Parts: sequence; C-alpha cells; structure tokens
Amino acid sequence: MDSRLFSEHVPLKNVEIDDVFWNTRQELVRTQVIPYQYEALHDRIDGAEKSYSVSNFIKASEIVKKISAGCDVPVYPADRWHYSEKDSDEQAFLGWVFQDSDVYKWIEAVGYSLTGHPDKDLQQKAEAVIQLVCDSQLENGYLDTLYVINDRSKIFSNLKDYHELYCFGHLTEAAISFYNATGKRELLDAACRFADLICDTFGEDKIRGYPGHEIAEMALVKLYDITLKNQYLDTARFFINERGKKPYYYDKVLGKTTVEDNYHYNQAHCEPRYQHEAVGHAVRGVYLYSGMADIAKRYKDDELYFACRKLIDNIINQKMYINGGIGSTVHGEAFSYNYDLPNDLAYSETCASVGLIFFARRMLEISPDPDVADTVERALYNTVLSGMSEDGKSFFYVNPLEVLPEASHNDERKKHVKPIRQKWFGCACCPPNIARLISSIGEYCYTQNDTAIFIHQFIGGRMSSDKGQLTINSDYLSSGRISVLVSPKKDFTLAVRIPAWCDEYTFSHKCEINNGYAYFKIDAETLIDIQFKLKIRMIKCSNRVRANIGKIAVTRGPLVYCLEEADNGNNLQMLSIDRHTDFSFDGQYILADGFREKDCATLYESWREAEKERVKLKFIPYYRWANRGENEMSVYIRIE
Amino acid sequence: MDSRLFSEHVPLKNVEIDDVFWNTRQELVRTQVIPYQYEALHDRIDGAEKSYSVSNFIKASEIVKKISAGCDVPVYPADRWHYSEKDSDEQAFLGWVFQDSDVYKWIEAVGYSLTGHPDKDLQQKAEAVIQLVCDSQLENGYLDTLYVINDRSKIFSNLKDYHELYCFGHLTEAAISFYNATGKRELLDAACRFADLICDTFGEDKIRGYPGHEIAEMALVKLYDITLKNQYLDTARFFINERGKKPYYYDKVLGKTTVEDNYHYNQAHCEPRYQHEAVGHAVRGVYLYSGMADIAKRYKDDELYFACRKLIDNIINQKMYINGGIGSTVHGEAFSYNYDLPNDLAYSETCASVGLIFFARRMLEISPDPDVADTVERALYNTVLSGMSEDGKSFFYVNPLEVLPEASHNDERKKHVKPIRQKWFGCACCPPNIARLISSIGEYCYTQNDTAIFIHQFIGGRMSSDKGQLTINSDYLSSGRISVLVSPKKDFTLAVRIPAWCDEYTFSHKCEINNGYAYFKIDAETLIDIQFKLKIRMIKCSNRVRANIGKIAVTRGPLVYCLEEADNGNNLQMLSIDRHTDFSFDGQYILADGFREKDCATLYESWREAEKERVKLKFIPYYRWANRGENEMSVYIRIE
Repeated sequence: MDSRLFSEHVPLKNVEIDDVFWNTRQELVRTQVIPYQYEALHDRIDGAEKSYSVSNFIKASEIVKKISAGCDVPVYPADRWHYSEKDSDEQAFLGWVFQDSDVYKWIEAVGYSLTGHPDKDLQQKAEAVIQLVCDSQLENGYLDTLYVINDRSKIFSNLKDYHELYCFGHLTEAAISFYNATGKRELLDAACRFADLICDTFGEDKIRGYPGHEIAEMALVKLYDITLKNQYLDTARFFINERGKKPYYYDKVLGKTTVEDNYHYNQAHCEPRYQHEAVGHAVRGVYLYSGMADIAKRYKDDELYFACRKLIDNIINQKMYINGGIGSTVHGEAFSYNYDLPNDLAYSETCASVGLIFFARRMLEISPDPDVADTVERALYNTVLSGMSEDGKSFFYVNPLEVLPEASHNDERKKHVKPIRQKWFGCACCPPNIARLISSIGEYCYTQNDTAIFIHQFIGGRMSSDKGQLTINSDYLSSGRISVLVSPKKDFTLAVRIPAWCDEYTFSHKCEINNGYAYFKIDAETLIDIQFKLKIRMIKCSNRVRANIGKIAVTRGPLVYCLEEADNGNNLQMLSIDRHTDFSFDGQYILADGFREKDCATLYESWREAEKERVKLKFIPYYRWANRGENEMSVYIRIE
Repeated sequence: MDSRLFSEHVPLKNVEIDDVFWNTRQELVRTQVIPYQYEALHDRIDGAEKSYSVSNFIKASEIVKKISAGCDVPVYPADRWHYSEKDSDEQAFLGWVFQDSDVYKWIEAVGYSLTGHPDKDLQQKAEAVIQLVCDSQLENGYLDTLYVINDRSKIFSNLKDYHELYCFGHLTEAAISFYNATGKRELLDAACRFADLICDTFGEDKIRGYPGHEIAEMALVKLYDITLKNQYLDTARFFINERGKKPYYYDKVLGKTTVEDNYHYNQAHCEPRYQHEAVGHAVRGVYLYSGMADIAKRYKDDELYFACRKLIDNIINQKMYINGGIGSTVHGEAFSYNYDLPNDLAYSETCASVGLIFFARRMLEISPDPDVADTVERALYNTVLSGMSEDGKSFFYVNPLEVLPEASHNDERKKHVKPIRQKWFGCACCPPNIARLISSIGEYCYTQNDTAIFIHQFIGGRMSSDKGQLTINSDYLSSGRISVLVSPKKDFTLAVRIPAWCDEYTFSHKCEINNGYAYFKIDAETLIDIQFKLKIRMIKCSNRVRANIGKIAVTRGPLVYCLEEADNGNNLQMLSIDRHTDFSFDGQYILADGFREKDCATLYESWREAEKERVKLKFIPYYRWANRGENEMSVYIRIE
C-alpha cells in the first residue's frame, strides 16, 4: 500500500450533476422513487406488501415514552426473522428484523437528493420521520424497533441473525447524508449515541461479537470521518479483526452449529484478513469488504489491504457477470464457486452490485486502478440501471442474463428470475439502494489528494475543490466525447481514467499515460477535449464459464447490450451472430447480421448442418430490457 | 385402438436369458444386489442409513398378535412423511411412510431371480420375510406397518401423502412375482385379502378416494390377470376415473389447498383421460400412465388410450433426455415444461426410467410401435444401466448428462447430482427398482397374440409359447448381429423390431417391413440371421432444447456415449468435435477427432477465433460413467 496514491472521494455538496442521461435518472428518483417509497414506508400503497417501517417506529416511540414515564410495558417474542400480523400481537413489531433500514435508506436518499435539489416540503417530511426515529431511541442510546418494542432483555443476544448492527449502519449512513445536506444534527446525534453504546458494548475486553450482516464497519468509519472520534474507528477495526476468530463467537453464544460452512454465508468462516475468495451472501460480502478497505487505508494495514486486493481481483476475474452482477446463486443469495456464472439461473442482486460499487470506490481511494474503476462503470451502467424501470415505478431484485418467461413461471429453479420488474418488495432492499446510489452518484465520479484530482466516471456537471473547478460536458454514452474545463486555483495534476473498453482515444492536450489513467499537468485554465472511440465490440467470456462457450456478448462503450424477443422473435437460442458481421448503430439499436435456425422436427435426429436463414439482429442496452412487457431476453448469442 | 394389434408380454417362466451382456448384470443382481439389499432391510450395513423395513414388520406382527389376544396396544402419531429415532417412541414405526415397499421390491426381485435361477437358501430367506409380512396383516386384510403399529384409527385418512395404497401396489407385485416363481400362495393370499378390503372401501358408492402415489392401479390389473376377479379391475378403473375429479377428494378430506397446482405433483389436477401432457412427479406419472394403459386396453377405452398416446408422445418428443431419463427437475422430482432438458441440473431419476419402461411395454401390448419400443431400449441401455455400478454395489438415483464434481459439492442447485454412485439410500427406491427390472428383463423382450410373436428387444436366450420356441443368439451391442432360430409348433408370424437408430440392415429371409417391424411368415424351423449395421452417429437435439444447441451426442446402436475427464482431461466444455471427423471403435472407446480450446487469460475480452489444438476424443458408453472415481462427464459436445 503506497499512501502517496491515497485519495478521497469528493463530497456530494461539491459535485453538481448536469448530464442529460443522469439528470433523467436523478429526477426519476426524486420525483418518483422517493415519494413512492415514502408512501410505501407508511403502508399506503394499494396491493403492495406492507412495510410496517413507520408504524414500528410509532410503536417504539410510544414504548420509549412509557418507559420514561415509569410504566410497565409488555414483552413479545424477539426470536425470528419475520413477524406477520397473523402470528404477532397487534402492539408488537411487524415485518422483517431489518425493517428499520428501509426508513434509513429513504432518509439517506432524501439527504442526497436535497443536496443537489433543495425541497422544503420533502425536508419537512424527512424531519418528521427523523423525529419519530429519535423518539424511538432508548435512554442508553439503543435504537432498533424490534427489540425496543418486543423485548429489551434480548438486545444484542443474536448478532448473527437479527440485524441490530445492520440497522445501526443504515441509521448512521442516513444521519450523515441528512446532516451533510441540511446541517441538521438530530439524527446524527442519535446515531452517535447509538454508536457510543456499541463502542461501550463491543471490544477486546467487552463482548467479542460482530455483526451478522455487515455494514456497521463502513458506517462507523464514515462516522469517524465526520466526528473524528477514534472509538468509532477502533470499533470498526475490532469488528473486522474479531470476525471469524475461532472458537466462533456465534457458536459460543448460540450453540455450536453442525455445519461450519454456514459461516461462509456471513463471511465469518475465518478472519477477514485471511479471506482471499469472495464467498457467501454477496451483499454482506461487499459491505464487509468495503469496511475492510476503509480500515486498511486508515490504519495502513497492508495485510488487510492484500486481502481486499485478492477479494476484488477474485470478483473481477472469476465471479462477476459481464453486466457487473455478482452473487450468481439464489441459494443464500451468494457467490458461487469460481467461473460459475450461469445466465439463466443468475441471482445477481441489484443491491450486490450497489455494494460492489461501494467496495470499488474505496479501493480507488487507496490506489487508482483502471480495472476497479471499470468495475464501478460496469455495475452502474448495466445492473444498477437495469434495476429500475424507465418510469421509475418498478424494480428488479434479480438481474439475469437470459430469461425465458415460461421458465420463470413454471420452473422452481428460476422462480427468483422475474421477467418483468416488480412494484415493491416485502424485503425492500433493492429500490432504496438504487435510489441512494443514483442520488449520490456524484460521490463516485472523482477522488482527490494533495496533488491530484482523478476523474473516474464521466458524468457531466461541475466539481469544485481547493484546487479549483472542473466543468464537465459529457456525451460519453452517445459519442464518447467529453470536454473538461479546468479552472485551477493552484497547480495540480488531473488524472483521467481511460476506460478499459477503449483502445482508441484522443486528448486535446499533452498528457502522460500510466496504468490506465491520463495525467495532465494543470497550471492554467484549460479546456481538455477527450474522445473515446465508441466501437461496437463482440466480447467473449472465459472458456471456464460453461454457459458461454461459443458465444459472444455485444457492447458499446460501457453498455452491455442484449437481444429481446420484442425485436428478434422468440426462441432467442436459435439465433446466432455472423462472425463477419458489420455492426450499425441507429442511436437506439445495434444492428448486426445473423442467422436463425429453422425449427427441428424431432427431439433427436442425426446431425446435419442446421438449416438457417439470414436475419438482422437488433440489440438494445441491457439496462433497458423488460420495458415492453414480458418477453425472452438474452445477453449472449452464439457466434458462427 | 385396434384390438387385432393387442398382444401380451410373455411370462418370465417362459423366457430364459442367455446373453453375455445381460447374464453379467443379472448375476450382479442375484449375487450382489439382492443379498446386499437383504442385509440393508435388516439394518446390518455399517455406515448406511437404516431402512427399518424389517424391524417395522416385526413390530407390526407383534401388534397384530396383541390385538388378536385382546390386549390394549399403544397409539403413536401417524401424521408425517418420516419418523426418526429421535422423535419417535422406540416401539413406534420408523423411517419413511413408504418403507414397507423396500421389503416388497426385494421379494419381487427375489421372485424373478428364482424363476431363472432356483436357490433354496434365498427362497427360504424370502419365505421367512413373507411370513413376517403375513403376520403383520390385520384381520380385515389391512396391511401397512405405519398404521398397524402407530394408529389404526387413521387408516386411509390421508391417501394423498401417506402411501398405504402405494405399499399395497408393491405388496401385490411382490406376491405375484413370488407366486409365479414358486407356486407359493401365502403372500398372494395376503395381497388378495388387502385388495378385497380396498375394493370394499373405495368405489362409486363408497369412499371416492384414490392413491396419492400411483401404482395400485397397475398392481390391481396384474392381480386381476392372475385371479380373474373383476372387482380388482373395476377398482383399478375406479381409481383412474375418480382421480382429479372436481371438487377434489383431497380438498374435501384434507381441507382446501391454496395452490391448486400442487395436484399436478400427483397427476390429480384433472381426470387422467384428459391429461395430455406429462406433469408432476415423474415416477408417479409413469406408474399412473402404466395403469391407464392397462385399463384402456382391458376396457377398450379409446378416450383413455388417446390420453396415453398423447402422454407417451409428449414424453418421447418433448420431455425425455437422449439417455431415456425423464423428470428433469429436482423440484418435486418432476417433469418440467416442454424441452426443458438441462444437462447439468437434470433429476432424471433411475426409477422414473424404470417406470417409463413399464408404461412403454403396456403401450406395446396395445399396439406395436417402433418409437415406443425404442424408448424401452433407450431407457434400459442408458439410464437404467447407469443406475448401477459395474460391481453392483453402488447406485445412482439421479442421472445427469453433464457433471462437474466441483458443482455437485459447492452448488446447492446441483447437490442432487452426485458425481459418484452412492452405496444405499435412506429413501431406497432406485436400487431395488433396478434389481426388479433387470431380473425380470425377459418380460420386456417379447409380446405375442393369437397370430404373432413380436421381438421388441434383442437379448439372447430362449422363449417358448404355444406357437413354438425362439432361440436367440445376440451380439446386438457389439456387432449388431442376431440369429433367431424359430422352432414352430404351428404357423405364425414373427415380427422383429427394426431399431429406430438403424438405417442399414439385412435379414436372411424374406419379410415384409411395416411401421418399424419386419414380419416373417413362419411355417417351418427357420434360422433367421439379422444384421443391424452399427454406425457411430452424431445426434443433434432439437434446437428448442437451449442447453444443446450447437452440440451433438455420440451414439452407437442403442448406446449413448459420453466423455469423461479420466480420458479427456478436465474442462470438458473446452472440447469440441470436428464435424468432418472419422470415428473409430476399439471395442471399448469410440475415438474421434476434435479440438481443445486453450485457456482464456481473462474473464472478458474482445472476441477472436479461439486458439485450440487438435485432440483425440475418447467416448465411453454412458452407462459406464463414474466407474473410475469422481470426474467430469459430458454427453454433449460442441461441434465445429
């Protein structure tokens, strides 16, 4: 780890997005997703599964009031993952154990949105929700509605399964977002009080536990960054160092599990610094790895950084779909073994790609790396964008690379693969995760250190720092052309990432190219014109990936394309692309020459050259699939 | 249905197997499987899951004794599928609800084995077990150890789930086999007493229930054929006609299920005569269809036969693997939707292919049909044979067409796909099903009617009937050469199936070829020499089957071949076959020219022609795979 390469992302308040492509998406989040989500949190969406999030906070705040008044309060069970109306008292907690986090993710997204787009009404709504959250905090700082409502005696008794520290993480991220946007401290103070309790509770000479679902690690680091209170950083490090030590904490508290493998699910099978392969629940994994990268950097912990490096290399080189999806199996929503990337059985949760972007940005803050920056781009422009419909009203949880609606309806193995986006989820992690990422996308474009500003993502707008201002005009997706007006306050180096997909580019100014970045010396106002040539490319997948051998995917710039039945007819597997095809691009579709095999008469017959006809293949960007009703989709196509 | 085409299979006692290939397998069953299974039924196999079968009968016989002595007997729960030692009283029933059937399948196999190979010691062992079974029968004829031991008041209370009528079916098939072999009536009488009780209990004006797991239908027909008691045939017909009528019997008795789809699992979603697509649990399906064919023929029920025809056509043309495997999904061990035949996720239970052979033979008894006879051959020589190791000591339950051991070990989706055969199963249906089929294989070779004898399968040996004797010398698998010495007692027609895979054949005598059979007029002793030319063929699968597009499988005669890692190295997916290859056959391997792609350096890169080297591909018969330890296997290979 070379600390001279360290950089930090630029705070959102210093980045203004002004980009045709991204404005639309941010506006969708602002005008559709956030208001819809607000209604969902209040259980006011007809036909959607209830969230119970706000009603749990109302119940919790009443309990807190009663406790301070010295009243007796009832006790309900706190012993499972989900609490339905049917099997719970009407005064008890309802929903999933992590239901509070929905409220927090909404507040976090609101904070980001208010940063770029002040909105008094929205801020007031958020402040009312925040008041409710603050009123639900126990006197000692504890704040999780499941335990506050149901049974205070069970607090921190099952860290493995019951998500208190997970909810704390989201609370903290929400508090920081809202504080940064508005300067209002109420939620931040509440998060700090809860963090103080956690720091008092867990540690070397205290309870040696750690979160079952990671996120507290990176949240505590964020809290340290804003408060500079060392105990937050120490506790984050403690959680990471303690994790996976034998004998297992979870075994000691909850009884020995018979299958040690289970802890792979939580990345608690061994100490994180010795984890070199991404395993288990993918979202948990990348959240943990994000915290590891944070801690590795702040403590200059080379061993931990080496593990992060191994993990991100393993993801990028063996466990990531071409669209930046990760976690290829539905069983445990988990990473599978190396190169197990089936197209049609993919899990590839939207949240996991969001988390991968968190992890990748932290790695970039340790060292600029074109593969890592490319991974942010890959996940962002494909899986994350695909997660939300073009009207912002429906969402994918699972992001397959091949869909046959008949299979989704009839095959239990593919029940998780939805052919159309869903309105809302009982376990509503993905929509708010998309919302918070898109509304904070500015935090992923730039990093800087004492001597340099790095442009990692090419999104139009303005960025200002102590070194000066950048004004970006980006036509990245359409023409690959970007202009960067640099207005320096002092001399510095501007580093511009060269996308991995681009082998032909021009810069208007002299620069030094080193490890995937172009470095410009800036000593006066400069307008740098950049042209990344957008070729349409046929991409092959490693032949270790069994599903894709003999096939290619089509890409243009950062966008992966796909075939849909709406454009190409059904039985997409009968299509193949001509290896000699020319491509054309009409602004919407990529067109190519291909073939369609004629239907076979019988199930088994002697092989002969397939009868086929020439067809024009039409590809659309992957992120736009399933916006025209249920139909077949495929990213990969056989090449002939 | 044209009753002039009806025929009947030739009873086992009139068929003697004498065939190098099949003698070995029958001897394995006789000397390995049957003795091993006897020990397993008695829970005397170290390290194997306990069967509890014999101990349940011991408990039941003691209960029966106590009841006749007027003693009070305890009551235990009879409310679930499985009873473990942990959650059961030590005097109560143990194991799966269908555990009795293991004893019955063993007796059935013993009966077949004794027919061709008398063995006093084995017969005595079987008679002792039979005595135990007979001693477990209640006075009213009822016989199922779960209910006899645990709770007589619950008899016939849950036909859908608890397998009493299934066990009755196996009891009956065992009784008939043993009676045919030995002339001993004890078990047959017990089966008849139970059958009488069933006939008295179920019917139009009685309980309108039907079996959850089918088999009683075909068993009752067999019992009719041997006793000529009409009520057995009537009750079999009643079970078939009543099945799936609305409102559902199961709903009425057990409460409305919320998911009507569940009854697809039991083929009880609609009346069998209106079922035109094979759905649900595959073994149950083919057992039902076998009973339907029996009833259609005996009642000349054209509508029911039309359904059977639709069902077998659907299986053959849309739902059967090239190795004769059926039931492609592990979820419900069930048929999937049309053309959903994944290689690596296959369930394709050995028992389902055994049952398919039962169904197919019954269809052949209605009308000779080359596709149906071919299906018997396909399932027999590939999936059924693959089900047992070469030493007769281990067994496959699941028969995949592609195996990566790493996936079986690490991927929950493929946990059911075992890369090596298992010693025994807690739910031990497959090994005894293989045993009973192989030891009764003579019943599948011939059918006859008043005017003709049909040879459907080419297995060496002798067959005698009222029309005379056939002496078959078969070198079918090695050279395709068969001689049939016909020694007639009267004039008749000999019909010889022409295998569907064979497009070049010679017969030494003049014959008429019609719909896949060669018809010879026999009026004197004749030695017919048959030569089916055994070509090595490349077979393609319909392009509706997504997994196999651009691939071929290699066959020779009835045998499907496969590639194993032991002969071809790992990463079998990197291999392809040269479309212009010559094949050679060295008596063991098929050799062909092919290519191996070189390893890719990165997960995603621009497409270019794959680097590859020429290799010699070695194929072995599919049924012999996994006899050399754990390794990769694939039936299909890309063709270039």
